Amino acid sequence: MKRRPRAVAPPLPVPTWIARKRDGGALEDDAIRALIGGAATGTVPDYQLAALLMAIVWRGLSPRELAVWLDAMVASGDRMRLSAIRGVKVDKHSTGGVGDKISLCLAPLVAACGVPVPMMSGRALGHTGGTLDKLESIPGFRTALAPREFARVLAKAGLVLAGQSATLAPADRLLYALRDATATVESIPLIASSILSKKIAEGTDGLLMDVKVGRGAFLPEKARARALARTLVQLGSRAGLRVVALLTAMDQPIGQAIGNACELAEAIDVLRGGGPADTRALTVRFGAEMLVLGKRARDVAEGARRIEAAIGSGAGLEKLRLCVRLQGGDVGVIDDPRRLPRAPLQTVLHAKRAGFVTRLDAGALGRAATQLGAGRARKEDRVDPGVGILLHHKEGDAVERGAALAVVQYSDRARFGAVRGQLEGAFTIGAVRPRRRPLIIERID
Amino acid sequence: MKRRPRAVAPPLPVPTWIARKRDGGALEDDAIRALIGGAATGTVPDYQLAALLMAIVWRGLSPRELAVWLDAMVASGDRMRLSAIRGVKVDKHSTGGVGDKISLCLAPLVAACGVPVPMMSGRALGHTGGTLDKLESIPGFRTALAPREFARVLAKAGLVLAGQSATLAPADRLLYALRDATATVESIPLIASSILSKKIAEGTDGLLMDVKVGRGAFLPEKARARALARTLVQLGSRAGLRVVALLTAMDQPIGQAIGNACELAEAIDVLRGGGPADTRALTVRFGAEMLVLGKRARDVAEGARRIEAAIGSGAGLEKLRLCVRLQGGDVGVIDDPRRLPRAPLQTVLHAKRAGFVTRLDAGALGRAATQLGAGRARKEDRVDPGVGILLHHKEGDAVERGAALAVVQYSDRARFGAVRGQLEGAFTIGAVRPRRRPLIIERID
Repeated sequence: MKRRPRAVAPPLPVPTWIARKRDGGALEDDAIRALIGGAATGTVPDYQLAALLMAIVWRGLSPRELAVWLDAMVASGDRMRLSAIRGVKVDKHSTGGVGDKISLCLAPLVAACGVPVPMMSGRALGHTGGTLDKLESIPGFRTALAPREFARVLAKAGLVLAGQSATLAPADRLLYALRDATATVESIPLIASSILSKKIAEGTDGLLMDVKVGRGAFLPEKARARALARTLVQLGSRAGLRVVALLTAMDQPIGQAIGNACELAEAIDVLRGGGPADTRALTVRFGAEMLVLGKRARDVAEGARRIEAAIGSGAGLEKLRLCVRLQGGDVGVIDDPRRLPRAPLQTVLHAKRAGFVTRLDAGALGRAATQLGAGRARKEDRVDPGVGILLHHKEGDAVERGAALAVVQYSDRARFGAVRGQLEGAFTIGAVRPRRRPLIIERID
Repeated sequence: MKRRPRAVAPPLPVPTWIARKRDGGALEDDAIRALIGGAATGTVPDYQLAALLMAIVWRGLSPRELAVWLDAMVASGDRMRLSAIRGVKVDKHSTGGVGDKISLCLAPLVAACGVPVPMMSGRALGHTGGTLDKLESIPGFRTALAPREFARVLAKAGLVLAGQSATLAPADRLLYALRDATATVESIPLIASSILSKKIAEGTDGLLMDVKVGRGAFLPEKARARALARTLVQLGSRAGLRVVALLTAMDQPIGQAIGNACELAEAIDVLRGGGPADTRALTVRFGAEMLVLGKRARDVAEGARRIEAAIGSGAGLEKLRLCVRLQGGDVGVIDDPRRLPRAPLQTVLHAKRAGFVTRLDAGALGRAATQLGAGRARKEDRVDPGVGILLHHKEGDAVERGAALAVVQYSDRARFGAVRGQLEGAFTIGAVRPRRRPLIIERID
């Protein structure tokens, strides 16, 4: 968190505004601009912001307040100028899942179908992975791009896969650090404005939002996830950003791989026409939605056909190869994923009884992977790209007693010992085959 | 507010505790002790405390949490040792009113009846006056007493009228400053623990709480005032402090005088057997309650007779004279209140129609007096002891057209001009005599 001068008294009636929100009233437009501006410049002290944030967790923000809040967050920094790049630019953002490597195969496919994808992603935090960490398992791949380079890669490759520039929406960066330290993250208007401030500053025209639901999701309850999705769609619309949101299942992990290098390998498999059915299905559906947003398909069915074709022709893989090359990465790993890092130790987890996998706990697996080094407990932690969990069976699969449920790759025996029980406990095996649940729960636009 | 080292990360899972309170759960005893201790020592940063305070405004504190919270506040500093002074010591505290000079005549009368009164008071803030400011209109009177002198004056005079020592409940001082800056003052558990932490550290055995209700009160609604009174009684009882609370009317000001020197003069009038009926009635009733708390009267009726007798004999006035002398004040003003400071300018407000005073707005008068210099808009402001408003008519009084409603004493013509409309608007004159409302609304013990 940025240090701020503590002795400077703000010339603003901040306690009056906090009191208004505390009592359930609405903040005036100028008050919101002064508060967000003051957060970015350090003239409103963080203790006042912290009290305000908790009052917002309590009382919420009206659509009008939220629109002004978002606008002020965007205005706190630079905006990317991508107007020189032709076409309707479309990004995709996920609230975070376990085994969620969809962006890695999705962005090249959408770009291959003619829709530019300016993608700024985040890092792993908590039990969910981050696209940047997965990309950085490619030797040499640079995710920290200056705005000019970001635009140049996008113009040349039709996609760019980068981290958020520090000059975009700096108020969000400050407020997010404060929210993290003050238990004020979990507020739908604050989450929505945080996501969209970065996307609007990034310069995209359309956004596909993947809002995860279920035990491995940031917002496990469907009602809360739906409320976030609606807020994102409506707030985006007010701000001139076209948003389509899909609620998708995050009870069990996506695909087979959990971990950085192994998830990238799975994404490459999808681009080669293989990969697990669910990873592929989500990629096609998301891609189809993005092509519609980007006006390169009339409807989702046409979009899906075009994405399937870009897989079949290898055009998606070509786009990923081009992007990796332009961003300094070793293109060799795209052709030979065995060159990706892999942790030295390996243990197979076996089924202790025969039956059906009735439950595969994404949250438990995500936390175990994080503890093994695939993710971060704190922002400063380094990830171990070679750590991973490869699932051999998923919900609904029949298993024999002693069958391999998963292979765990790790570098530290003690850490593995500490999470082994948790990994085994993530699988529940029962006598009755469970009902298959849909991947896509709801679409909101 | 105390500066704190920003770089030191607290070794405590503070966000987890904030989240628990945010979600309506209870804080563990150790968490509360660590938070209050961390507030006092600066190891928990103020932005985390601010978010926690807002979560407490939202979710409240259970009786058990509140008892531990209070205990930790008291434990953050010194405790006065008054056990060498014989008798059950009884203090009185008010939530703050307009024209509320009761402490000034009450404490000497209770002391004259044999109950020691260790009184630590506050200063004017907002639209309500402060006992310390009123006392300091006596030339030379010292309210900043070291603990030893506090005990010595109490032992000699049977009463002491002082400000709060900085070494008592320092966590309250820090939290109060933070609450003031973050709109988290108005929480019943936080108000109750703030009041009682200072009273317990001060060493009193009993406390009469005057909880004001009505448009001039800090908590205007009766239900909120009653909730505070109940919390004070129950929380005091858990902490070994006997508390009796009276809900009293604060729609119109108490007595005739609003302002520092003129309120002191009214209190002296009461000690001489005069003064307005309501000031006198409240003094007698409060005194009676304090004598019962101090085991010098079997019931309120006997207590009232004893207080009346101490007025009649002049014993109360003697006690005030002794206290003023011991605390360095000019005793001459007790015998000749005309020697008290008085602002140079004077304007009479006249009734614009005949009828009955149906409403006399204590809040409006208090704010006007503050703007004229009788109180403080900010803590750093100095008060003007000679500024005052003398009410010639109160609610229920019949007035002729052109009759004098009030005399305003002030030092600054421009300031008077700015509040004249507000002063006149504080009086409503109607055709029908209003019902007389009771001074004492409810008693809670």
